[in-house]
Amino acid sequence: MSKEFRISVKKKVNLSNFDPKDTGRFQNKDEVAKEIKELEQELQELQEKLIAGKEHAVLFVFQGMDCSGKDGVIKKVFAGLNPQGISAHSFKAPTEEESRHDFLWRTHHAVPALGQIAVFNRSYYEDVLITRVHGKVDDAEALRRFKHINHFEALLADNGVKVVKLFLHISKQFQLEKLISRIEDPSKNWKFDPSDLLERKSWKQYSNYYEELFEKCSKASPWHLIPSDNRWYRNYAVLKIAVEALRSLDLKEPPANPELQQLLAEIKEAEK
Amino acid sequence: MSKEFRISVKKKVNLSNFDPKDTGRFQNKDEVAKEIKELEQELQELQEKLIAGKEHAVLFVFQGMDCSGKDGVIKKVFAGLNPQGISAHSFKAPTEEESRHDFLWRTHHAVPALGQIAVFNRSYYEDVLITRVHGKVDDAEALRRFKHINHFEALLADNGVKVVKLFLHISKQFQLEKLISRIEDPSKNWKFDPSDLLERKSWKQYSNYYEELFEKCSKASPWHLIPSDNRWYRNYAVLKIAVEALRSLDLKEPPANPELQQLLAEIKEAEK
Repeated sequence: MSKEFRISVKKKVNLSNFDPKDTGRFQNKDEVAKEIKELEQELQELQEKLIAGKEHAVLFVFQGMDCSGKDGVIKKVFAGLNPQGISAHSFKAPTEEESRHDFLWRTHHAVPALGQIAVFNRSYYEDVLITRVHGKVDDAEALRRFKHINHFEALLADNGVKVVKLFLHISKQFQLEKLISRIEDPSKNWKFDPSDLLERKSWKQYSNYYEELFEKCSKASPWHLIPSDNRWYRNYAVLKIAVEALRSLDLKEPPANPELQQLLAEIKEAEK
Repeated sequence: MSKEFRISVKKKVNLSNFDPKDTGRFQNKDEVAKEIKELEQELQELQEKLIAGKEHAVLFVFQGMDCSGKDGVIKKVFAGLNPQGISAHSFKAPTEEESRHDFLWRTHHAVPALGQIAVFNRSYYEDVLITRVHGKVDDAEALRRFKHINHFEALLADNGVKVVKLFLHISKQFQLEKLISRIEDPSKNWKFDPSDLLERKSWKQYSNYYEELFEKCSKASPWHLIPSDNRWYRNYAVLKIAVEALRSLDLKEPPANPELQQLLAEIKEAEK
């Protein structure tokens, strides 16, 4: 499955070749309900091993157009995990202090320590997306940034941090329906951000820049393209990729410490 | 319930008057199973309101002797929440840099922003506990720190952060059994910390210092004493206190924005 949606470095991706409504070999969510239960359980067990072993870390990077469901999928897939082993970070427009640092500074600070999982809701990839659309970063600078990103992700990999990158792929129509529902449903008004309407006008440009970064930044860690017009399938696919990422670390139970046995006799004697 | 275990500021607490095996009006965990399900559901709903409203924050401070189950209860009660709205922080011995700051510096940095929940596994209270037991903080300094803590918690309260303090109360015998099980069970060896044995020798001193801080630091926010020899009751009590804490904020649904309706017509027109 995660191979199915993995983007190969070699060939240029054309996003319009990927159907955002794709649901793989499944027709509806009932067909994945049982597997989801099992995967959720497995993810929890894998996380406990990750925490105990302190030899690996996993960073999940979520990107996608506005309304693609980053918040929703993060909640759905990662609630259930031990909060002491996971942290989520949402990156908005940089603060003034952050702007006076290199573009990787603020995200570097938030990468997971060994034993931990971190989830990025948007990331340093915005620094080759919205900044380009807004004309703050030109093509030459974007090329340099692609390189810096690859080096940064290689550094993380060298330190035991597995970087799992997920693009939530929605259709332009899906976004429109979401935006309208945020206006029509008064309880969702607080989620509506007028700037989303503005960014929507640059849909094509965003798509092009995404296609370029998929091509240029899949060296140290591949991108996964998640068809996300169907919420249930999006959640299932991300959960499956998350489990497979942790499985791939081949996490071991922490070793027993035979020296402790001697201590046991002493403790029992002392407490008599 | 949360009142039941709330420590009054006025009277000095004698820990030996509190039975760590207490299970309130319940005999076993089956009796609370249904209520736990409901409380878990309610906690999730309250958290969503907290996130949406961004007017309040909640800080849960966990203290207790080694092996009192801080890790366990944090996992049990707070897994299930949206990871984007909760962060957990574990405070070990301070780093060199942290030691060169005042004792509240590192914890202040980790307090929750409005809309967020933070969980402290140990806290600034260690700075009037282990530091005193180890002779690094004398009585006069401890008195000054109690004052600083009260001022700090008042500052947080003034900024909309509700501080909920929980002491996991176990018996000395319970700790011994836990320590032994961490040695006897090879898969738990990694959890065994030899320094716990050393600290155990200062049990009485720790108890005295806890009693003193309960008396001196319950002004801005009360302490809750959780009987914790029975895991199921400990989990239930903490969950109930957590839900009651969020309930007490009287969280409102975020208000609708009537101005958006006009936008809707424009959007539909533009997308034709």
